Amino acid sequence: MNTSKPADLTRVRVVGAGMVGTSVALAAVHAGLTVTVADVDPAAARMAASIGAGTVAFEQQSTDDPQLVAEPQLIIVAVPPHAVPAVVAAELTAYPRAVVTDVASVKSPVVAELQNREARGEVDREMLSRYVPGHPMAGSERSGPLAARRDLFVGRAWAVVSDAGSAPSALAVVRDFVGRCGARTVEMTARDHDAAVALVSHLPHVAAATVAALLAEAPAPHLELAGQGVRDVTRIAGGDPELWRQILTANAGEVAVMARRAATGLTAWADALDATVGSPADPGSVGDRLRTGVAGVSRLPGKHGRPELFVTVDVVIPDRPGALAALFADVTSAGVNIEDIRIDHNPANEQGHAQLSVLPDAEPSLAAALTRHGWSVAG
Amino acid sequence: MNTSKPADLTRVRVVGAGMVGTSVALAAVHAGLTVTVADVDPAAARMAASIGAGTVAFEQQSTDDPQLVAEPQLIIVAVPPHAVPAVVAAELTAYPRAVVTDVASVKSPVVAELQNREARGEVDREMLSRYVPGHPMAGSERSGPLAARRDLFVGRAWAVVSDAGSAPSALAVVRDFVGRCGARTVEMTARDHDAAVALVSHLPHVAAATVAALLAEAPAPHLELAGQGVRDVTRIAGGDPELWRQILTANAGEVAVMARRAATGLTAWADALDATVGSPADPGSVGDRLRTGVAGVSRLPGKHGRPELFVTVDVVIPDRPGALAALFADVTSAGVNIEDIRIDHNPANEQGHAQLSVLPDAEPSLAAALTRHGWSVAG
Repeated sequence: MNTSKPADLTRVRVVGAGMVGTSVALAAVHAGLTVTVADVDPAAARMAASIGAGTVAFEQQSTDDPQLVAEPQLIIVAVPPHAVPAVVAAELTAYPRAVVTDVASVKSPVVAELQNREARGEVDREMLSRYVPGHPMAGSERSGPLAARRDLFVGRAWAVVSDAGSAPSALAVVRDFVGRCGARTVEMTARDHDAAVALVSHLPHVAAATVAALLAEAPAPHLELAGQGVRDVTRIAGGDPELWRQILTANAGEVAVMARRAATGLTAWADALDATVGSPADPGSVGDRLRTGVAGVSRLPGKHGRPELFVTVDVVIPDRPGALAALFADVTSAGVNIEDIRIDHNPANEQGHAQLSVLPDAEPSLAAALTRHGWSVAG
Repeated sequence: MNTSKPADLTRVRVVGAGMVGTSVALAAVHAGLTVTVADVDPAAARMAASIGAGTVAFEQQSTDDPQLVAEPQLIIVAVPPHAVPAVVAAELTAYPRAVVTDVASVKSPVVAELQNREARGEVDREMLSRYVPGHPMAGSERSGPLAARRDLFVGRAWAVVSDAGSAPSALAVVRDFVGRCGARTVEMTARDHDAAVALVSHLPHVAAATVAALLAEAPAPHLELAGQGVRDVTRIAGGDPELWRQILTANAGEVAVMARRAATGLTAWADALDATVGSPADPGSVGDRLRTGVAGVSRLPGKHGRPELFVTVDVVIPDRPGALAALFADVTSAGVNIEDIRIDHNPANEQGHAQLSVLPDAEPSLAAALTRHGWSVAG
């Protein structure tokens, strides 16, 4: 095979002008690469091109630019999950020197289907050595080329599968491209990837939907007592059901395993709670379960991975036009660096609270400045 | 009995100078009431008084203020859950004309224990008619008087139990006080209250802890793929385990029922997912389950109860000092009213995204203004 060294990567082809594909194309253009974009729907490809995501692939013959008519060095397949294996195989065949990667959110089925195609002689080992399964950990509940953004991947993890028989040089091309998109390569096996996303992405959605389903059948007055906690826990369950149906069913086996583990965990919780009824002790270790939860949360990467660095200044925001903007103006004039901000709305909707995270040193001066400007502040 | 009419409420006694009790006292002082504060730990009461939460109860005799030495009209018991029935009974006995309420987060056990005391002759029906079980839906992961704030209850629901034998005049006093604290009375039976908080407060915590427990035992590289979704779902599981042990075990029976319903839901999810393996159809109705989740989330009260009113402008925030403040300054100068803001941190921590919610009319001008100031914006 003849893949370019990373430093030589100049020509990229994107197949699939949806939100993710168009974002990949925009990021590649922004990184200075020459990009062609293709879609089974020519209108989608044209729309992507119209917002700066490269040149429409079937129109590239009409140009004199040698970069555009030359074979792409890297092809990113960003088509719907069920179409990925066929499109990857077609691209490997049509472009015999290109590295091909994809962005499907589940990897083992894609790898297995391409191995089936190898067994049937539709692709060969050399071709598969040019394929690198990938998955950028960035998405949106929006779809289509107009929802794309060139910085969708900036600062995100981009999983790259390490055990699919990819040539080291092909892996190097994809790693290089991931870096150019502003993302960070995380290499793991296809199986590890699918188990990881089942845990950190798919199970949380299923758990949120499970709690939300109980909200759906609750008496309306009960929901009047809802606060920020249940809103946070269930928020993602408000996402597009058809998109999530595709995502979850593509990884159904792994997600089912996780859902059963969570069901077992909830049953154990119920047993532990029941064991405390009428007992002053905690025989089922409710306390231990809570401490395990704290330990799990603390393993998640956060702001600098060290949220404990910051302290919170809590400000009441009256619900009147311009209140948040006025707060921003006063925060700005205080000259304090805000590390994070969180708005907590109240069910009564008459007020909100803003939690401003700052370094401990900055808390007194920010609190003093906001108080001076008439805000109700608690450190 | 002889309870004051709401308009006459001037003298309040708070028993328990923790975070909630001190916040109640601060709110009462702010509402113009005369407040005494008591605690088994005199230092806690003195600390509360030192930050403006009234006068220490055992020091009131040394004053000439007739309001301070007169019997309180309303007593708010804000002691740890297990101590509530005894303290409520003691206060009803010591102050034979006062209305007594409490802030314990679970109501049926308190009501039942006071009925036991009535059966034993320790309190009588007249005394219990002056008791109104209550529960302000506001809290914090912080504790102690110094974590208190006078506006803790502003805009929040404050549950008041309607079926505990309280006299209508006593209920009126508590309703009036709730309004003076800026909160909104939600009346329901003790049983409904406990079921409601099991659903909207306790189950979400248990579900979050269950997902977090699976994170606790996952291989470290898997967590590198974590995004904002799992952080939101598990965030509350990071709360103080001892505080939550008390809260959950006080409502153990109701929470166990909810946890079992959620476990059943998760098992049904697993079955539905497994049924899709190798099948292009969706025989277990994964799609229906997702749509039910969307319906549940939509029932939660939110910003004006109508989040769909707003559109989101997404801005990339570089991780450098002053970036958020600079964004606030540019948002302010754009003159657009921001309805909500959400910061999404990336695991790589080099950048964040701010999602600014605005009315649809305002989106184009905000996006244009921020772009003009050099921000990377997606509508």
